[in-house]
Amino acid sequence: MKRTLSITLAVMVVTLCTGARADEGMWLYNDFPSADVKAAHGFAPDAKWLEKARLSSVRLAGGCSGSFVSKDGLVLTNHHCASQCIQQLSTAERDLIENGFLAQNLADETRCPEIELNQLVEIKDVTDRVNCSTAGKAGEDYSKAQKAEMTRIEAECAQGGKWRCDVVTLFHGGAYHLYRYKRFQDVRLVFAPEFRIAFFGGDPDNFTFPRYDLDMSLLRAYENGKPARTPEFFKIDPKGAADGELTFVSGHPGRTQRLLTVAELEFLRDVAFPSRLMRLSEARGMLAQFGRQGPEAKRISQEGLFGVENAYKAIGGEWRALLDKTRFQQKIDAENALRQTVTDPEKAGAWDEIARAQRNFTEFYDAYNMLERGQAFPSDLFQIARMLVRGVIEREKPDAERLREFTDAALPTLQQYLFSTAPIYPDIEEAWMTFGLTKFREILTTGHPDVIKVLGRESPESLARALVRESKLADGEVRKALWDGGIMAVLDSSDPMIKLALAVDDSARALRARYETEVEAVVRRNSEIIARAHFHKAAGKTYPDATFTLRLSYGTVKGYTDHGRQVVPMTTIAGAFERHTGQDPFALPKSWLDTRESLKPDTQFNIATTNDIIGGNSGSPVFNKKLNLVGLIFDGNIQSLGGAFWFDESVNRAVAVSSAAIMESLKKVYKADRLVKELSR
Amino acid sequence: MKRTLSITLAVMVVTLCTGARADEGMWLYNDFPSADVKAAHGFAPDAKWLEKARLSSVRLAGGCSGSFVSKDGLVLTNHHCASQCIQQLSTAERDLIENGFLAQNLADETRCPEIELNQLVEIKDVTDRVNCSTAGKAGEDYSKAQKAEMTRIEAECAQGGKWRCDVVTLFHGGAYHLYRYKRFQDVRLVFAPEFRIAFFGGDPDNFTFPRYDLDMSLLRAYENGKPARTPEFFKIDPKGAADGELTFVSGHPGRTQRLLTVAELEFLRDVAFPSRLMRLSEARGMLAQFGRQGPEAKRISQEGLFGVENAYKAIGGEWRALLDKTRFQQKIDAENALRQTVTDPEKAGAWDEIARAQRNFTEFYDAYNMLERGQAFPSDLFQIARMLVRGVIEREKPDAERLREFTDAALPTLQQYLFSTAPIYPDIEEAWMTFGLTKFREILTTGHPDVIKVLGRESPESLARALVRESKLADGEVRKALWDGGIMAVLDSSDPMIKLALAVDDSARALRARYETEVEAVVRRNSEIIARAHFHKAAGKTYPDATFTLRLSYGTVKGYTDHGRQVVPMTTIAGAFERHTGQDPFALPKSWLDTRESLKPDTQFNIATTNDIIGGNSGSPVFNKKLNLVGLIFDGNIQSLGGAFWFDESVNRAVAVSSAAIMESLKKVYKADRLVKELSR
Repeated sequence: MKRTLSITLAVMVVTLCTGARADEGMWLYNDFPSADVKAAHGFAPDAKWLEKARLSSVRLAGGCSGSFVSKDGLVLTNHHCASQCIQQLSTAERDLIENGFLAQNLADETRCPEIELNQLVEIKDVTDRVNCSTAGKAGEDYSKAQKAEMTRIEAECAQGGKWRCDVVTLFHGGAYHLYRYKRFQDVRLVFAPEFRIAFFGGDPDNFTFPRYDLDMSLLRAYENGKPARTPEFFKIDPKGAADGELTFVSGHPGRTQRLLTVAELEFLRDVAFPSRLMRLSEARGMLAQFGRQGPEAKRISQEGLFGVENAYKAIGGEWRALLDKTRFQQKIDAENALRQTVTDPEKAGAWDEIARAQRNFTEFYDAYNMLERGQAFPSDLFQIARMLVRGVIEREKPDAERLREFTDAALPTLQQYLFSTAPIYPDIEEAWMTFGLTKFREILTTGHPDVIKVLGRESPESLARALVRESKLADGEVRKALWDGGIMAVLDSSDPMIKLALAVDDSARALRARYETEVEAVVRRNSEIIARAHFHKAAGKTYPDATFTLRLSYGTVKGYTDHGRQVVPMTTIAGAFERHTGQDPFALPKSWLDTRESLKPDTQFNIATTNDIIGGNSGSPVFNKKLNLVGLIFDGNIQSLGGAFWFDESVNRAVAVSSAAIMESLKKVYKADRLVKELSR
Repeated sequence: MKRTLSITLAVMVVTLCTGARADEGMWLYNDFPSADVKAAHGFAPDAKWLEKARLSSVRLAGGCSGSFVSKDGLVLTNHHCASQCIQQLSTAERDLIENGFLAQNLADETRCPEIELNQLVEIKDVTDRVNCSTAGKAGEDYSKAQKAEMTRIEAECAQGGKWRCDVVTLFHGGAYHLYRYKRFQDVRLVFAPEFRIAFFGGDPDNFTFPRYDLDMSLLRAYENGKPARTPEFFKIDPKGAADGELTFVSGHPGRTQRLLTVAELEFLRDVAFPSRLMRLSEARGMLAQFGRQGPEAKRISQEGLFGVENAYKAIGGEWRALLDKTRFQQKIDAENALRQTVTDPEKAGAWDEIARAQRNFTEFYDAYNMLERGQAFPSDLFQIARMLVRGVIEREKPDAERLREFTDAALPTLQQYLFSTAPIYPDIEEAWMTFGLTKFREILTTGHPDVIKVLGRESPESLARALVRESKLADGEVRKALWDGGIMAVLDSSDPMIKLALAVDDSARALRARYETEVEAVVRRNSEIIARAHFHKAAGKTYPDATFTLRLSYGTVKGYTDHGRQVVPMTTIAGAFERHTGQDPFALPKSWLDTRESLKPDTQFNIATTNDIIGGNSGSPVFNKKLNLVGLIFDGNIQSLGGAFWFDESVNRAVAVSSAAIMESLKKVYKADRLVKELSR
């Protein structure tokens, strides 16, 4: 699940884009500025319209968005959102990434081992309840009390696992909302095109426009072994979108940082981003070279490489945005202006408190990443071992006192990962583990007590080999026995990964406690103050930073000027054939070359819109005021990467697959008549 | 020669260290502050002493220092300074990196294909002559006139190749000195220990202290097929150094940046260093994984990986130093103070001019790196192809109009590389070339005209493979024929590397011209102004930034406090055995384990001194006032990496192999009686 987590992070930043200023905002469904939309575009979404859009939207719990596109639970999302499943269902003999997948009938639809879908059914404001629990508290007390109250609220809502319930922190602590989701864990793969067309142009074209990608896949939600009934869904418009058309995007933007203080931005610019970029670029070199050993090595490393390259490009873009001195100065000026409005001396120190927390975090940031975030042990087997070790300990505690990912409300998601049947490849595990242990020793240095404890007299290579080759955790039965056996079974285990996870657990937990108490709690408490000042200054007309919860943005299909060149906001299928060179990543798949003559060359392929979105919006539906689906978000242009921090009205664009290309290719290239029929109903 | 160049860069930053403030400075031999040394340490080097030290010092033209240690041309330097030669003389069957090398007699001493030694015989001030040539000129005129005059001065001095003559730019253009060297190109390998002891502790221990490295090798300069006569040499003191002893280091520090403007430091911090670090970390991942394919893959990639890891750690340290806000603010304050002293309005703009040049450079920095610096084509074969393509064109021009590396004075060094017999390994060439072409397309983007011209419809992998497998430039005869055949032979060549070098030559030269005119010339002209202001403010008592020319520093053997822990300035042989784990890089070689009982455990192994040195000083002799050699510089501690920009009096340390360990191991581990005798005479 290391790749799962890394993919999660990667996907969180896949589409990172903002619209023109007039259309700025990732709005809460329960606070949507319909009047502003009416004023700007002549159409005001009403409550019924909003409810239908909300219920037609889904979240992929791993870090993506999607939507229902038929009454029988059919879900449209990106290929890159389902690619982990596609990879997990592949074997050396049957490579679904390379060749694509089409279920000819319901029986062919194949369950994804690790996909969970969430449909948002209710939002409730619980700000007062959370705030009451922490009144007058600070540091560890604040942190514990808040977590406990959030766990209680979620447990009450979940009704013994019937619902997925998350308390969502908005405005960095300015508000708390309870999101209740219907959860689908039986999700099956229905259709995926070949990787070559899903990601045509590959890393070189990633975060660019014009584009020619069929970055789509179809999944189906099942209930009790049958297709789920989903009366609310988006009907696909086979014509695509029109230039200038008003478009809405409903999805789950992962993380923006527009409300961060200057100190927090500096921390990202000088500490966090460089650290991640160095690591990603080294991992990229490692994985690319790993894949050159042969076709099977390439197959098993491709998914990881794709995630790493994507994250590297996305974070690199965000980081370069922060190096823009003019923009950064604007942030400083805006902060100074906001500080002027806070005169209460008890509150005026909020920015300094946050700055102090950042400096403190810098002190133990590397150790925290290595030990608690697991960068030292970037392997699926280790992740499983840690889940087992912590799981059996945490389950013994009262719900409200557990680590947040082990509460009763969180267990279904966790167990889906833990008992996943996805294959684990020892070669790639060993390469990752060698990489992680090498960085561990390098960054914390040879003299660090945890480095000494973990490595002893071993080298990273020899230890990685022993851990991966001797661990039995690839076997689901072994995991089950440990999970069911509880603490004693885990303590008695001779599995080297379990022993490793046990050996570092105290240090890792101590770092986590330090982070939660000295950084997170301080930032949260003081961000509350700043959020209120911000809210007050904006007279309430504002939207919270992205939190991987459902948001609605509005915009239009619109071109832009890039280095003096006018960019038209749509491409055609003919353009893809022009860009085809025959060499990856500019090689179209055989299916497209074979059916070229039958395809309408001027069919709309990809479109660019001004919608304000970001990573996590991958797979979001683009729809018009009639609630017809005209596109499928899969990326943003390179200019959009600064969208994490500020909104550039002129060039930031969301990039989507046109519904026209989806329907044309399903019909003519893939001859998916069953699906075309279902999508046309 | 790609690795040569990359190793050069790496070595330039291997030892990067500064002493305590009292002992700050990399002083010119012709401007040494003997009175200050006398005042601080009670000893004043006189002219004769200085001359002897100078003539006993040598430069390794590839990027290192060394010294004569016998009257018969024996040269002591680091293992890592000779490791390229050691690698080049190795084969799959006879791995001298792994096993070391000892010539039992003169006949066994084996010529290094690419090492050139320089002994500095004269320094002459030519500032007036250079300045007269550029009086009243700017931009391209300034640049051309200056280069032409420098080439003329060098040609007059070289007397048809008898001497190596370099005009050296000091104080960033504040002064120009002519350095006349005796050149040795017949340099033979005499002794090298095993890599395991030369680089014990490997990358984890690199740039740390305490250390336990025998990072030494012995070479011998030959003239007319016989050992060169070198009456001036350092006698090795088998006792090593004493705590508190006054020590001198004579060597060739490569590059410091203590006199740079704030705008130049910002350029390094925000543009140049991150760009290099990302590239290095990706290359590191690639090379490490490459080496895991098997023993031979490991052998042929080890040298490159070592260089990359070293550069990554060194530049990373410099970069982190620049992120220190307090230090950086001191730089800003110092610059503001210096600007106050310049009132002439024509000169007061010097800092802004330099800032403008940096902004301009940022615009084409990536393209310049890729095409002119060759980052797109990081292969030995391409470097050879470029030398051939440019060489035959440049030779046709008058000496003063050529690119500087093709002047008559420069040709002997260039030809030594061009006709080197060093082996070229296609597998590693192909991996590097794939890497370079991938970055080329990624960073300049697919639409860049040169990317289109180079890649056409090929992928980086397919093109790299074709270029490396089809080129015949690994064959020295082929190179010779092209070099001798001149322009027509090169234009007619069907060699794909030659064709590539030809195809990108116009673009590369245009970028170089833009750099020289719009950046270098502007910086140089304005740095002259700033250097004079600086010189004036320091009342002449200052030293220029390092320029890979001979400098003398003074300091003492001295411990320091590291995170509250007292560090003793010397280690012992016993300590090495304590640190031995049996796993690389903490595995001692068999020869040491076998002779452990015979070694005196308290023999001094490595020492730390306050001498102000930096990369390029690798291999420098450490000697006392009696001119006896007590150590061999090979590194600096981690705290020294900020020494590129400022001098930290408290913790910066140079790290050296003690002469005691050198003699003890030669005697007892290697039983090199012939050499021990020669070194004891």
